[in-house]
Amino acid sequence: MTKKKRIVVIGGSASGPKAAAKARRIDNNAEVVILQKEADLSMASCGYPYYVGGFFNDRNQLLCTPTGVVRNPIFYLNAKNIDAEVSTEVTAIDTQNHSVAFKKLATGETGTMVYDKLVIATGSVPRMPPVPGVDLTGITTLQSMKDADFLRKVRDEGKIKKAVVIGGGLIGIETCEALQLAGIEITVIELLPQLLTFLDLELAKLVENHVKDKGANVITDNGIAAFLGENGKLTAVKLQNGTELPCELAVVAIGVRPNVKIAKEAGLKIGDLDGIDVNEYMQTSDPDIYAVGDCVETVNRITGKKVLAPYGDLANLQGRVAGENAASINCVTFPGTIQTGICKVFDYAAGSTGLSETAAKRLGLSNVITVINASPDKPGFMEGKLLITKLIADSQTGRVLGAQCIGPGNVSKQIAQWAIAIQGKLTVEDLINADLPYAPPFSLAIDHFIATAHLMQNKMKGRLKGVTCKEVWEKVQKNEKPFLIDTRGPDEFEQIRLGIGETLIPLGALRKRLQELPEDKNKEIICYCKISLRGYEAALALEGNGWKNVKVMEGGITAWPYPREK
Amino acid sequence: MTKKKRIVVIGGSASGPKAAAKARRIDNNAEVVILQKEADLSMASCGYPYYVGGFFNDRNQLLCTPTGVVRNPIFYLNAKNIDAEVSTEVTAIDTQNHSVAFKKLATGETGTMVYDKLVIATGSVPRMPPVPGVDLTGITTLQSMKDADFLRKVRDEGKIKKAVVIGGGLIGIETCEALQLAGIEITVIELLPQLLTFLDLELAKLVENHVKDKGANVITDNGIAAFLGENGKLTAVKLQNGTELPCELAVVAIGVRPNVKIAKEAGLKIGDLDGIDVNEYMQTSDPDIYAVGDCVETVNRITGKKVLAPYGDLANLQGRVAGENAASINCVTFPGTIQTGICKVFDYAAGSTGLSETAAKRLGLSNVITVINASPDKPGFMEGKLLITKLIADSQTGRVLGAQCIGPGNVSKQIAQWAIAIQGKLTVEDLINADLPYAPPFSLAIDHFIATAHLMQNKMKGRLKGVTCKEVWEKVQKNEKPFLIDTRGPDEFEQIRLGIGETLIPLGALRKRLQELPEDKNKEIICYCKISLRGYEAALALEGNGWKNVKVMEGGITAWPYPREK
Repeated sequence: MTKKKRIVVIGGSASGPKAAAKARRIDNNAEVVILQKEADLSMASCGYPYYVGGFFNDRNQLLCTPTGVVRNPIFYLNAKNIDAEVSTEVTAIDTQNHSVAFKKLATGETGTMVYDKLVIATGSVPRMPPVPGVDLTGITTLQSMKDADFLRKVRDEGKIKKAVVIGGGLIGIETCEALQLAGIEITVIELLPQLLTFLDLELAKLVENHVKDKGANVITDNGIAAFLGENGKLTAVKLQNGTELPCELAVVAIGVRPNVKIAKEAGLKIGDLDGIDVNEYMQTSDPDIYAVGDCVETVNRITGKKVLAPYGDLANLQGRVAGENAASINCVTFPGTIQTGICKVFDYAAGSTGLSETAAKRLGLSNVITVINASPDKPGFMEGKLLITKLIADSQTGRVLGAQCIGPGNVSKQIAQWAIAIQGKLTVEDLINADLPYAPPFSLAIDHFIATAHLMQNKMKGRLKGVTCKEVWEKVQKNEKPFLIDTRGPDEFEQIRLGIGETLIPLGALRKRLQELPEDKNKEIICYCKISLRGYEAALALEGNGWKNVKVMEGGITAWPYPREK
Repeated sequence: MTKKKRIVVIGGSASGPKAAAKARRIDNNAEVVILQKEADLSMASCGYPYYVGGFFNDRNQLLCTPTGVVRNPIFYLNAKNIDAEVSTEVTAIDTQNHSVAFKKLATGETGTMVYDKLVIATGSVPRMPPVPGVDLTGITTLQSMKDADFLRKVRDEGKIKKAVVIGGGLIGIETCEALQLAGIEITVIELLPQLLTFLDLELAKLVENHVKDKGANVITDNGIAAFLGENGKLTAVKLQNGTELPCELAVVAIGVRPNVKIAKEAGLKIGDLDGIDVNEYMQTSDPDIYAVGDCVETVNRITGKKVLAPYGDLANLQGRVAGENAASINCVTFPGTIQTGICKVFDYAAGSTGLSETAAKRLGLSNVITVINASPDKPGFMEGKLLITKLIADSQTGRVLGAQCIGPGNVSKQIAQWAIAIQGKLTVEDLINADLPYAPPFSLAIDHFIATAHLMQNKMKGRLKGVTCKEVWEKVQKNEKPFLIDTRGPDEFEQIRLGIGETLIPLGALRKRLQELPEDKNKEIICYCKISLRGYEAALALEGNGWKNVKVMEGGITAWPYPREK
């Protein structure tokens, strides 16, 4: 009888167990071992904020199969024939001798285990701000099951009245919602000028407005200077501008960094972004060692550049690839990421795929064209909910580079569609006549996705001359005084209006009121309405009547994130 | 001053107004006229069932812009500078003289109007069964605003107790739901063995079970023989097998045929499917005449064959293409359809895109491989809802040919993703590592879409040897006696089980209970569980232990449409 192949996996959260399970399915005879530092296995860590927020109460649901079986070592042994050792920390990898050194955390017992193939899935560690007071009681992250348990206890006890979330990224916003739902007065602090940097500024500001509408406080452009405390307990957070925010709880969510300690010590190649360097087989610089999940660098499929992409879905997919390669030979590849992400923000979702305009500009791409579309996701009579999408394309080839979408509507469907389009290298033109599932309970006759492509096509053909709300706001601030036309009805104007010097001329009256427009046919005119469909029709009508510099404010009032008159 | 170009559009429902509006946007100087036989314009006809069903009460919502302005002739004139003549029937087209003859239905007045370009958007007419009694009072279709008004009145009055819907297609099922919600005892009659023929039989049967669970009656494999009545009023429907179903209302929904009367009389080329023949510019055999919407034949983008595809979304897209070409020169094309459709069925949605297995076989495609995947759309802790997808691919190239999805989950998102993938000519392999928007409120870490691709990959690689529930059911009927293993837990087995001679061996116990399996290692063994993930693991374990003919029942008990023991 030949010796069994032994595949050892370091890490038992997302990508590790997936690699182990796939390896088992590929090689029924191999010995498959998971060494997991934590006491739990296969934690649904992306679910922590929803446990904290009270969306569900049974902690075990974070650790269960869909049929309610807890994924503990007994489950792994019986159902998958995998030896999962929990509370077992791997302290070193000996690549020469093909072995790992481990320590049993409960007993202090140490040992070594040889491997034929090794999969490193050590995840990430939360970044902490380099400021005084970081060790005070009352400061936590939301990265581990222990963190989730702590914050859930905070919720259940109801003693804490004020909390601060440091960091306005995905986890920060999810934590903000969770604590706000727990009845805690919450302030989110973000060093950058905006929340959720996967969005461009104008969409991020709309999300910020929604967060504020829901009762949470948001402070942007301001970092943390110190945690202040008394008797070892947090009492306030001090900001860089000197403001002190009294609070009994602070959640740090300023991002994570790859946990590469043992990989680095073992001499494996670490990339420029401080993640483990892997090839398309998820193989490290040592051919018998694979690495997956938050601890690795992966490739952006659009730019070809290495990126850190610590997402649970990618971790699972990478685990599947490494598991198969480790169990057989290098035969399957991981193509990388387009950095698709989504986040629940109270009644909104905010998602992004591909490149943002900011990212495209940072990369120095020159032919970038963008458009913003606002519409409901379904007809009004089926209670359609708002979607605001920003599409980013290559102005020469029309290839879709990225899309962002926010709002209470079915954002995840929109982003999923754009993600497939980007991965298929499709152009705007390819999507103009897309045949999508239409019925009133599910979409508009021309789906928001297709309408966004239509707007982009109109812009690329020079028919739609768009300006963003941001550009209009800047013009107003600079006192440039373009001729602004709100093309809605008087009743709509009475309810909501920008008050930036606009003239109300309803679209239906425009052709009869042309004498009210500037005599100078070269004067800059900007039209808008609620979502700027009527604004677009108005602009075309004015061009048809000789005005030469007519623009449309993309997304209309719906996409306006700045203060309004009413 | 040069003479203005006149673009005349016949038909004011979906594609006609879209063509007119696009023509106006392309040519601000043209004269654009809509001649509409009905009194209303731009009716959201796909919304009729939801008005009848009481999802909303304001009839005007079917005729309004998103901001609540009724799209009547005044709206068209003021907002779009389009002359919309309602209650105006076009009776003939004179291609020689470039004119149409019309009749004002209110006054009987007749006249002619010359055109430079003509767009025919005459829609479809409902098919009626060629049986006695079709003129009795109480028989209707749900095709026009008048039909919708009539059925809404039925709902509001609450007098009718029993109704029959003839036809189990999309409109039939939507009407069934509407009337059932109105408190009417409803029976759906379908001549074919299944409802919703865009689905393959096994998925259609699951939908049928849901319809029945909701309290509606369904009779398949049985057509109508006659409408029976007394004093001119419907009293019953007689079926081909002799059954008489007493009812006071019958809604006929056996499909539509293109309304080509005036086009045919004008000598325009009519295709083999009795729709107006158009090229990719939506241009008829007369170069100055375009045709769009339900009255035309369009191209299936996968097969290249002509099809009838009377869908509201395609009508709008075709209108946009014809409008631009009519207003300028032939410059934009319509690529055809992949026959994407979706339908609300009580708490389920049922959708399809591309080819069904049935359609692929009917076309004689030889390399067709299918797989069924069942899973929730989100994690259990976020109240995930079931999705069942059947994927159809080319077994040689892996190209995605079609997908169907049903269930209470986010079906429209799944179908939209497959639709983009098919239009991008993507393969299963392209989608294995798709980067989709993941967060627990929106999807599983490995989205149902990706998991479906994984199953197909496993099947194409020969790892997953799947059988459908239908095949298992047939084996059981034929008394073939494969060794059937239910790999769930005893508690699950106690709640629900098939009772087809299966042995309960929970996955976790399987490796210890191998002695209970057939000694003959060539014996056919079929494993399944709730969704057949555990069934798949079990099959691999058995293969690893020497059994050579082990299969997995795809979709598990969740996809089983046949009677169960409990």
